[in-house]
Amino acid sequence: MNCKIMIQYDGTRYDGWQRQGNTDNTIQGKLEKILTRMSGYPIEIHGAGRTDAGVHALGQTANFHLTERADPVQIKMYLNQYLPDDIEVTDVSEVPDRFHSRLNACDKTYAYRIGTDEFKAVFERKYRYHYGEHLDVSMMKKAASYCLGTHDFKGFCGNKRIKKSTVRTLEEICFEQKEHDLVISYTGNGFLYHMVRILTGTLIEIGGGKRPPEDIKKILEEKNRQLAGFTAPAMGLTLLRVRYEK
Amino acid sequence: MNCKIMIQYDGTRYDGWQRQGNTDNTIQGKLEKILTRMSGYPIEIHGAGRTDAGVHALGQTANFHLTERADPVQIKMYLNQYLPDDIEVTDVSEVPDRFHSRLNACDKTYAYRIGTDEFKAVFERKYRYHYGEHLDVSMMKKAASYCLGTHDFKGFCGNKRIKKSTVRTLEEICFEQKEHDLVISYTGNGFLYHMVRILTGTLIEIGGGKRPPEDIKKILEEKNRQLAGFTAPAMGLTLLRVRYEK
Repeated sequence: MNCKIMIQYDGTRYDGWQRQGNTDNTIQGKLEKILTRMSGYPIEIHGAGRTDAGVHALGQTANFHLTERADPVQIKMYLNQYLPDDIEVTDVSEVPDRFHSRLNACDKTYAYRIGTDEFKAVFERKYRYHYGEHLDVSMMKKAASYCLGTHDFKGFCGNKRIKKSTVRTLEEICFEQKEHDLVISYTGNGFLYHMVRILTGTLIEIGGGKRPPEDIKKILEEKNRQLAGFTAPAMGLTLLRVRYEK
Repeated sequence: MNCKIMIQYDGTRYDGWQRQGNTDNTIQGKLEKILTRMSGYPIEIHGAGRTDAGVHALGQTANFHLTERADPVQIKMYLNQYLPDDIEVTDVSEVPDRFHSRLNACDKTYAYRIGTDEFKAVFERKYRYHYGEHLDVSMMKKAASYCLGTHDFKGFCGNKRIKKSTVRTLEEICFEQKEHDLVISYTGNGFLYHMVRILTGTLIEIGGGKRPPEDIKKILEEKNRQLAGFTAPAMGLTLLRVRYEK
């Protein structure tokens, strides 16, 4: 039985989604440990987005295989019973055997939240980046328009030694302003390591008047990470949703 | 110079507003320590609402006296520079010498947030009480209507040995539903120890069908804490605002 699950988590105290040899403090690790105890044999879980350390998720999606059928509601209850209170499974459903949460995803949306006023905002402090200054959103929108479509995003990739293709398609970049909060959401068919955070850092530098929107074109042409902006902090980033059908 | 300050805080890791002998982990204590360092002499700060351990504030108000004049903007910056990231001063202003944040308040509004679905809601988990079941809000509204006005609220007071008057005026109780969140806000001229939490616990029992709305009348008449409901957990409660003029 192939199970698809939806998960939300506050990434603050975790070393990211992906299980790693040197830490068992990952979201994937926590889920696999509970599922393995439940089933009695090792379970591997595949996540749609491999969120970095400190990054949050509202609609992360993953799947895993069980050798026998089980009630999805029971699986959800079992997982939530043993998960810590900053990770929650919001849905479990049976899917066709060949479904893979990452390979079958047609697009993902990440949201980056920025505070542009002087206040650190006590209740949102763990979920937004406190920039603390005005940003010229019209300049940022102009810059963002140069990123839309299919490009080689190597200049926005945090992994220097990447050998696989760095071509991705960014379908949409939305800007939403609520009082002194600016939320930028990115929808695309795939994202490179640190890509959303480097894009955001570059857009912040443009919105802050430190560089012109046209720099985006240059970074895409030259494919040089050194030309792009800073990597915006993990805390501001949330994986909003994963879509499987357009 | 008499200074009025507005403060917001996440009360999760504090022993409440009021400085106490046995702990220096209070909001009042943190503020006084920084103000005393700033001025060079002991400063006492008066808060409008003495929130319990674990209770939050969005618009707590307090005041303190300085022997000399100082720039309110500088005071705010100094405080925020040294405060931990779960306490923030949002405003500092000079007020007439006789102003007292608690004695001059004409009313206060507290909001209690309840989750009525099965989800603990990862991002709101510290600011709402996860009840997890449906509540009949019409029954709760009926019950709440019996509390409005001036009554002896001794039956809703958590301090058994209280000697002062337990008569208070509840001006308004509002119910707001957003998906599976229910927020009850209470506006009144003063609140007894645990009063909002015991009122909320009683309303939850009524909304859950465990007792009739008319029990409120009985509790007000008999003035017996034993007749009232459970004390709803601190985490769901937030001091929203303090008003000084109607």
